[in-house]
Amino acid sequence: MKKLAVLFLCLNFLWSFGQEDIKQDFKPSTLNQPGQEYPMVNSQGYVRFKIKAPAADSVSVSLGLGGRGGTKLTKNEEGFWTGTTEGPMDEGFHYYHLTVDGGTFNDPGAKNYYGSVRWESGIEIPAHDEEFYALKNVPHGTVQQILFPSPSTDTSRRAFVYTPPGYHTDTDKEYPVLYLQHGWGEDETAWMNQGKANLIMDNLIAEGKIEPFIIVNTYGMTNEIKWGGIRDFDIKHFQTVLTEELIPYVDSHFRTLDNPENRAMAGLSMGGMETRMITMNKPDLFQYYGLLSGGTYSPEDLKAHDDLKLVFLSAGSKENPERVKQATKALNDAGIKAISYVSEGTAHEFLTWRRSLYQMAPLLFN
Amino acid sequence: MKKLAVLFLCLNFLWSFGQEDIKQDFKPSTLNQPGQEYPMVNSQGYVRFKIKAPAADSVSVSLGLGGRGGTKLTKNEEGFWTGTTEGPMDEGFHYYHLTVDGGTFNDPGAKNYYGSVRWESGIEIPAHDEEFYALKNVPHGTVQQILFPSPSTDTSRRAFVYTPPGYHTDTDKEYPVLYLQHGWGEDETAWMNQGKANLIMDNLIAEGKIEPFIIVNTYGMTNEIKWGGIRDFDIKHFQTVLTEELIPYVDSHFRTLDNPENRAMAGLSMGGMETRMITMNKPDLFQYYGLLSGGTYSPEDLKAHDDLKLVFLSAGSKENPERVKQATKALNDAGIKAISYVSEGTAHEFLTWRRSLYQMAPLLFN
Repeated sequence: MKKLAVLFLCLNFLWSFGQEDIKQDFKPSTLNQPGQEYPMVNSQGYVRFKIKAPAADSVSVSLGLGGRGGTKLTKNEEGFWTGTTEGPMDEGFHYYHLTVDGGTFNDPGAKNYYGSVRWESGIEIPAHDEEFYALKNVPHGTVQQILFPSPSTDTSRRAFVYTPPGYHTDTDKEYPVLYLQHGWGEDETAWMNQGKANLIMDNLIAEGKIEPFIIVNTYGMTNEIKWGGIRDFDIKHFQTVLTEELIPYVDSHFRTLDNPENRAMAGLSMGGMETRMITMNKPDLFQYYGLLSGGTYSPEDLKAHDDLKLVFLSAGSKENPERVKQATKALNDAGIKAISYVSEGTAHEFLTWRRSLYQMAPLLFN
Repeated sequence: MKKLAVLFLCLNFLWSFGQEDIKQDFKPSTLNQPGQEYPMVNSQGYVRFKIKAPAADSVSVSLGLGGRGGTKLTKNEEGFWTGTTEGPMDEGFHYYHLTVDGGTFNDPGAKNYYGSVRWESGIEIPAHDEEFYALKNVPHGTVQQILFPSPSTDTSRRAFVYTPPGYHTDTDKEYPVLYLQHGWGEDETAWMNQGKANLIMDNLIAEGKIEPFIIVNTYGMTNEIKWGGIRDFDIKHFQTVLTEELIPYVDSHFRTLDNPENRAMAGLSMGGMETRMITMNKPDLFQYYGLLSGGTYSPEDLKAHDDLKLVFLSAGSKENPERVKQATKALNDAGIKAISYVSEGTAHEFLTWRRSLYQMAPLLFN
């Protein structure tokens, strides 16, 4: 027991030592709802919460250091529950939610983003390289919500189509298209909302780093049991929607370059799995493939893909980046052009994928 | 005391009598998050809630019959709080939120809509005339999110532009434009999300009831103190954004008919107030004006508006429809073409405005 007591004192000392280091320059998260002060983030990446629930017995936040079960809040005299993450969070976007007296709710201060098969609270830890996805005073493209007919699922399905600046004014120009998929638990809103794909593209185009292209996001049918769920996922349903319904609709309603050398498919996480399955089932449809934290190809996988221009593989440094690097080397050794990218200091989260898009976009359609 | 006891028994009897009348054909609200069973709505318009919060002491819902303070939920053995509204709700869309142990949260089962200066839960009571805003297998227009430069507010501002079916394929055609404003506490997302303006237009066009036109929604700067708040609202800030920044941007980036006879402005509630102020300050900019639950014009107001084609005034029957009818008569008596519309059985809510748009659209640009 004596040893335990000493250990406890030591831990307590280390904790208070850590706490003293927290800078008090907290600012509202950039993803807060209009006029909301909390949640706040400081320059080190600590997050501070403040939730009103005067009669609650316990309030905790799912956001916190890995494996430590989030952040428990304590009630102050005015009935607000407050608390700060035990340590700094990784740079970039994170989903989170509250647990209030055993129920799951969102933080009323934060905007919501679709992830984990629900609209979750979102927070942004400013990244040292955040300029590449910032809203700047540059020409902006538009994000078009389309409803395309889907006979195979007997409904009109939604997609978002990013058209670059100039699309509406230079009306003779035709563009390549990247079909870009979200991950499990997310939907077609993820890449533009959490991913800021439109701002990444606007900035790349304004800096002359890429030739403009179109991006299309639709729901990958990843979340419901009726399409196989995550365990028995069956790609054929989404493959039909994408290749027989969406692509022909986009090619007939937008000024696309309607051929494989101007068509790419990429996806993050389970969207990468989908990309891998569809590109292997349909080797003649796309000539650029991207798997972002979403698996790898072997040379064997791609032996019939004679016209393939590029494979892009990426991961966060806190994921399994070696696997991506090794797969890239094996592809290159087999004479297939492959490029890998590792996002430093990030895990299976959206900053990895924002950076991956930023790295991949200049490599497409060259 | 005896009298009180009898009264209590009577009330209890009447209440239980009422409860027996509730049909048990509850179905998930059409605005629920994917896979969520609750909230549910029955064919009479009663709403049933089920919220998990096993350790909470009280959970209530802001939705309920007018003036009765919402619906209190009771906890069952599994830790779920359940309850049903005391009576049927009006048809159409309603905002609501939960109060859990004194804190304000959203219903984790429902999707969120921006109203009351926060993202609120939304519920849909199926309306007898819901076909006019249903998603149907007809050609669909697109809803384009644009970011337009706003030197007066030193940022890029967001707007949504509905372009009708055919806009992307019949690339020589030019279209009239309706600038359509949301109400206080809402933002530029309201008309397409809550209002289903895109589906209303798609259906009207498919039925040949209107010639296609463009709709533009942007934020009316109604919610912050910096623009005067609701009490000291100063239209000049938004008027500059709309008339000097947004309209020129839309006219240069979309195929519009760029003249007053093909330009309309309308708004709901505070967006109607804004429409009234801007059209009176700028009598040469628009030739169609619509105030939806948003005030009236007098003949005196419009005496300098020589080219005015139409004033459209509307309200829900549970608002103050007489005022709208009288104003319309006074305008007509003065030789000004005005048409009024009263939405039966609705209050200051979105079904009133969906129906108003449906009634107003065929009257514009003729």
